[in-house]
Amino acid sequence: MARVITLTTDFGARDWFVGTMKGVILGIQPRARIVDITHDLAPGDIPAGAFALAAAFTFFPPGTVHVAVVDPGVGSARAAIAIRAGQYQFVGPDNGVLSWAVAQAGPVQTIRQLTNAKYFLPEVSRTFHGRDVFAPVAAHLSAGLPSARLGPSLAEFQQLPRLAPTQQRGKWSGAVVYVDHFGNAITNLPGELLRSQAGRTSQVRLPGRRKPIPVAQFYQGVAAGSPAAVVGSTGFLELAINGGSAAARLRLKPGARVVLEPD
Amino acid sequence: MARVITLTTDFGARDWFVGTMKGVILGIQPRARIVDITHDLAPGDIPAGAFALAAAFTFFPPGTVHVAVVDPGVGSARAAIAIRAGQYQFVGPDNGVLSWAVAQAGPVQTIRQLTNAKYFLPEVSRTFHGRDVFAPVAAHLSAGLPSARLGPSLAEFQQLPRLAPTQQRGKWSGAVVYVDHFGNAITNLPGELLRSQAGRTSQVRLPGRRKPIPVAQFYQGVAAGSPAAVVGSTGFLELAINGGSAAARLRLKPGARVVLEPD
Amino acid sequence: MARVITLTTDFGARDWFVGTMKGVILGIQPRARIVDITHDLAPGDIPAGAFALAAAFTFFPPGTVHVAVVDPGVGSARAAIAIRAGQYQFVGPDNGVLSWAVAQAGPVQTIRQLTNAKYFLPEVSRTFHGRDVFAPVAAHLSAGLPSARLGPSLAEFQQLPRLAPTQQRGKWSGAVVYVDHFGNAITNLPGELLRSQAGRTSQVRLPGRRKPIPVAQFYQGVAAGSPAAVVGSTGFLELAINGGSAAARLRLKPGARVVLEPD
Repeated sequence: MARVITLTTDFGARDWFVGTMKGVILGIQPRARIVDITHDLAPGDIPAGAFALAAAFTFFPPGTVHVAVVDPGVGSARAAIAIRAGQYQFVGPDNGVLSWAVAQAGPVQTIRQLTNAKYFLPEVSRTFHGRDVFAPVAAHLSAGLPSARLGPSLAEFQQLPRLAPTQQRGKWSGAVVYVDHFGNAITNLPGELLRSQAGRTSQVRLPGRRKPIPVAQFYQGVAAGSPAAVVGSTGFLELAINGGSAAARLRLKPGARVVLEPD
Repeated sequence: MARVITLTTDFGARDWFVGTMKGVILGIQPRARIVDITHDLAPGDIPAGAFALAAAFTFFPPGTVHVAVVDPGVGSARAAIAIRAGQYQFVGPDNGVLSWAVAQAGPVQTIRQLTNAKYFLPEVSRTFHGRDVFAPVAAHLSAGLPSARLGPSLAEFQQLPRLAPTQQRGKWSGAVVYVDHFGNAITNLPGELLRSQAGRTSQVRLPGRRKPIPVAQFYQGVAAGSPAAVVGSTGFLELAINGGSAAARLRLKPGARVVLEPD
Repeated sequence: MARVITLTTDFGARDWFVGTMKGVILGIQPRARIVDITHDLAPGDIPAGAFALAAAFTFFPPGTVHVAVVDPGVGSARAAIAIRAGQYQFVGPDNGVLSWAVAQAGPVQTIRQLTNAKYFLPEVSRTFHGRDVFAPVAAHLSAGLPSARLGPSLAEFQQLPRLAPTQQRGKWSGAVVYVDHFGNAITNLPGELLRSQAGRTSQVRLPGRRKPIPVAQFYQGVAAGSPAAVVGSTGFLELAINGGSAAARLRLKPGARVVLEPD
């Protein structure tokens, strides 16, 4: 069985931060297989981290320990937590970054506050708990440590609000929640909204744009340079341009309003 | 023996795409050793992907499975393929991205179209075959699956044209094919052209630049800030500036003409 | 025991350079666990590489082989070396990039010049010793090769000067040595300077800025948008902005003067 530990952070790849987390992990659990989900989140962008982790975590084998560190409050009073939910464990600051993934992972079995310094590095800095707290705790969990050793049980943990789309007169109103590397603008409109239309076609409207955007099966389902709404790999509707950046061309950012309506 | 799987994509490191491919691979073949060749190809740039893979693949141990996903046609009718050639296996879309590496790898033993959904993820999206098709197929191949199980044998696969240099009156005329991170401009002029000169020195001329560029043994073989033509680590002549970016200073892009002539 | 090999380079993640180093390593030592410290050093920036390696290496398990390749003189007369110091081995060009880490690693046990081509790739390019010399040597060392096989013993190796802070009339005068991904400006003023103040508070002054910068325990120890001097995860004082980039806002670059004085 692979002992997988994933890392989702805003530490960037430019410095040594992520490398030292991996060194700490391998010193405790030499068999760990460490996978980067991303380190290029905008500094402090907790919703982006929550979204990336939620989009990725189910594709890892059962038993994977997912570490997410977007932690502007490091060193302050915010708690550090470990959650077992469904077939996974999640480790990070208690600021909501874990919450969207945990909500999808299945029943929460235990929430522990990380207080037992025995499982931290001997010296804990005030600014880098990714290395000093979360990496060693994840390594110990991956090596089989019962989470009860980590600290007291908590009844709840910080939830990040999730904007759900709303329905009115047959139209669904949602928003862009993430813009990816290709410039595709991922919305909070689930792909199931299309399937439930039972064969009727739909289209997407953006405020300030007269022409509706057709729903297509895949990026090249429209002419080169044309926009399309596609059910993307996260299962949500995303706005794309065949061969271009929808975010740039349609000026879409997280929060931008998107309406799905019958054709 | 290391079970190495390499990944060459245009997915970027900013999102969770590459991480999920690795999660899928480790779920199927826990012993896989996954190595990133690059994920920072310009979106859709098939020749750059073909070049990167061709420059890298021979440095991996025999048995390595090389996955390349630059796939603007994902979801459309383009085929997905696996090729065994020489000591390696190659997996990706049939759009030419594998072709330069395969041409160098040795005799092609088999070409299979990937049609057997048993070796894909249970749900295949229309937009992310890297995760849903290529990653699981590569993991199964790395674990020893005979490629005949993947789908029907094909007689041929998509070739990307490769611009060869031309010779006229003792001069070789070629082109820049890739600009690297340092700003070195790699050409399609093989280093052997210099060796075949049997001791005679050569120089490089660029259109619109009066002064020829001397051939040097290494970057610091010319004065700081000066341009040199060097046989680079891919075996091809590259234009470099000692301590600077040749691409920026000499305004070189893929396609730029480069002439090698006797001194 | 994990057989860890770390890589610190200026090769960037955009091309295939780092991937090929990993392929070479895994071909020689299939059990190697390769960890990237960084590949995004500014091209040729030896002090930045020395700083990153020194900040990271102690967090890896004993026996780790640390490879650092910032090598503008590749192909020239500069030597290639391997050093055993404390519990680690270090491999790279003899240009100072290893020296700050080695100085902290403990007693130097042996310094070897890499001359025995038996442990290089069969063909050594003039421009990419990371792949052709340093990667295979590191893999052999990780697999247990006695370093005496690599080449002659050297009495000394290149030291990079390290700017130490100076004291005058109760004030410490230092400098910014590294700006990280978050825009935090790390100085050469050790955190111990604060502790030695025995309860007296201190503040930081920057030339050209009237208002002193308070020392805080952690980033959020000051109001959002305000600057603070914090003992960072490297153990040195760093200038930070709660929720922003100190480097951008306070115009700090490596070399900028920083004075620590009693409150």
